[in-house]
Amino acid sequence: MPDVLPTYADCQAAAARIAGAIVRTPLLENVALGQRLGGRVFLKPENLQRTGSFKIRGALNRMLQIPPDLRGQGVVAFSSGNHAQGVAAAAALLGMPATIVMPADAPRIKRENTRALGAAIVDYDRAREDREAVAARVLAEKGGTLIKPFDDAAIVAGQGTIGLEIAADAAAAGAYLDAVLAPCSGGGLVSGIALAMAGASPGTKVLSVEPAGYDGMRLSLAAGQRTAAHVSTISIADCLMAPMPGEIPFALARRHLSGALSIDDDALRRAVSYAVFALKLVVEPGGSAALAALLSGVYPLNGKTVAVVLSGGNCDPETLSACCTAFPAP
Amino acid sequence: MPDVLPTYADCQAAAARIAGAIVRTPLLENVALGQRLGGRVFLKPENLQRTGSFKIRGALNRMLQIPPDLRGQGVVAFSSGNHAQGVAAAAALLGMPATIVMPADAPRIKRENTRALGAAIVDYDRAREDREAVAARVLAEKGGTLIKPFDDAAIVAGQGTIGLEIAADAAAAGAYLDAVLAPCSGGGLVSGIALAMAGASPGTKVLSVEPAGYDGMRLSLAAGQRTAAHVSTISIADCLMAPMPGEIPFALARRHLSGALSIDDDALRRAVSYAVFALKLVVEPGGSAALAALLSGVYPLNGKTVAVVLSGGNCDPETLSACCTAFPAP
Repeated sequence: MPDVLPTYADCQAAAARIAGAIVRTPLLENVALGQRLGGRVFLKPENLQRTGSFKIRGALNRMLQIPPDLRGQGVVAFSSGNHAQGVAAAAALLGMPATIVMPADAPRIKRENTRALGAAIVDYDRAREDREAVAARVLAEKGGTLIKPFDDAAIVAGQGTIGLEIAADAAAAGAYLDAVLAPCSGGGLVSGIALAMAGASPGTKVLSVEPAGYDGMRLSLAAGQRTAAHVSTISIADCLMAPMPGEIPFALARRHLSGALSIDDDALRRAVSYAVFALKLVVEPGGSAALAALLSGVYPLNGKTVAVVLSGGNCDPETLSACCTAFPAP
Repeated sequence: MPDVLPTYADCQAAAARIAGAIVRTPLLENVALGQRLGGRVFLKPENLQRTGSFKIRGALNRMLQIPPDLRGQGVVAFSSGNHAQGVAAAAALLGMPATIVMPADAPRIKRENTRALGAAIVDYDRAREDREAVAARVLAEKGGTLIKPFDDAAIVAGQGTIGLEIAADAAAAGAYLDAVLAPCSGGGLVSGIALAMAGASPGTKVLSVEPAGYDGMRLSLAAGQRTAAHVSTISIADCLMAPMPGEIPFALARRHLSGALSIDDDALRRAVSYAVFALKLVVEPGGSAALAALLSGVYPLNGKTVAVVLSGGNCDPETLSACCTAFPAP
């Protein structure tokens, strides 16, 4: 159990800290999708966030708390791409140098965007090197502050601002949310949202959705302790390939998560295609995990009112095209 | 000059009339696009509207004013696709039968969606038949109310609600808009927005953007009277192929429009691709005309603050894929 868990007040403080620098993404009801599935569906499109994913929220909340005298040394992060862009964009906003340790096989769009945001990239081989060890080596050489992708109280509180916005916008729309579904990798996003909803809309259930084979949150909750998934294949959801939740996300998830679902890669591909043709949104495979749970029936709607977090849209053209070709009919 | 032009008060009344049945689309600043072009750019994503385009606003405002004793006879419309879906969705909401006269070569997604919304479709041959004559024949046979695509005061006032939302949301964001750019076919959208902005944000310029070869608004404003474009080719912007503005849109445009621009099909293709990869939004070629004017430099940003209307996202997969393949780099 980690020493310090973030609180609801930390989410509120994060919201005040990052306001103005992030996009206050809307909560959009999609009537056609609700009618199709039998219920009401709201979308939280974090693919429309700066850098194309939610990650800048946590990164900026964390980095704004680095003492001014340490900012000059910059930041170091390891990431397959979305956290990389979030950290790079936050660093650019704060005028700090950033070095990102990225797998050599990360989607091209994520590498190019990270570089375009002014960050230095250090490659590693996903199969043969440990990214945390590579990051530690960079830190030892250059100094600076490590910005972890999810196992950090300030990161989780920053992602929790999404939950605050969902709760406020649903209330403004006169809707009572039965549940919020969010994609899950290391669990920073879904545990932050669960923390925020527990304070802002206590009756709303929050559920995580992971790719099959990377469903460490599901296994961990079932076992009552952090448990790694038996990773044997590469998922199309490149942003959701953490085998196990972080300590802080897991501690929060045990308290606040109502369930943990998993879906297969074809459900992700189908959801990417549906998002393009029916929602008019570009969502990357991992970013569409919660939508996939709904469309595939893994989470049956049954008349309920739910919000679905679309967590990112940084998809290479080839992947987008392949999903749309494989599943052309919405 | 038409007898009755819609007023600013008509736009406000339309907003009250259709609220709750439409999506209150957000106004999203895109910092990366602003930095790229040198200025501030806000997006009004009407591709996220119900039916995937703005058209339901005007259709619903018009149809809510049909006297109850005439509603049972239903409505008839002619449209290449977006107005068709808007009318079909509004008719479904009001429990009215709808018959839509559509060109046989309309994008498949638009035909399928119109049928899925419960409307009956009557085909016509774009090259050999006059759609207004076909619609008149349907009306003579079946009765009902004709819902014109743009040359109707209630339709224009309904589209003007977009301007009211843009003005309110820009003010809430503390931004002063130098200009609003919107796609133009028959001019219902852009003239409605110009009318609304003249009341809500009088210093903001409103400009229309048309495909080359279908730039009837530009020619009409230059000539001081409604003038048809010399249509010689098919544009990729299937939703913007009206050769000439309507009487009501033109009368409003003369008073309230600050300029009329035109762009070529490759600029549209490039904008569709940019929307996918950088904005994470699916925008159809015609819906991206205003964005294309900005990206191509046809409208130089020069430090200004502008809002760009993305008017629709009903794009067949083949078209989307072709645009992204032809212009892969954002």
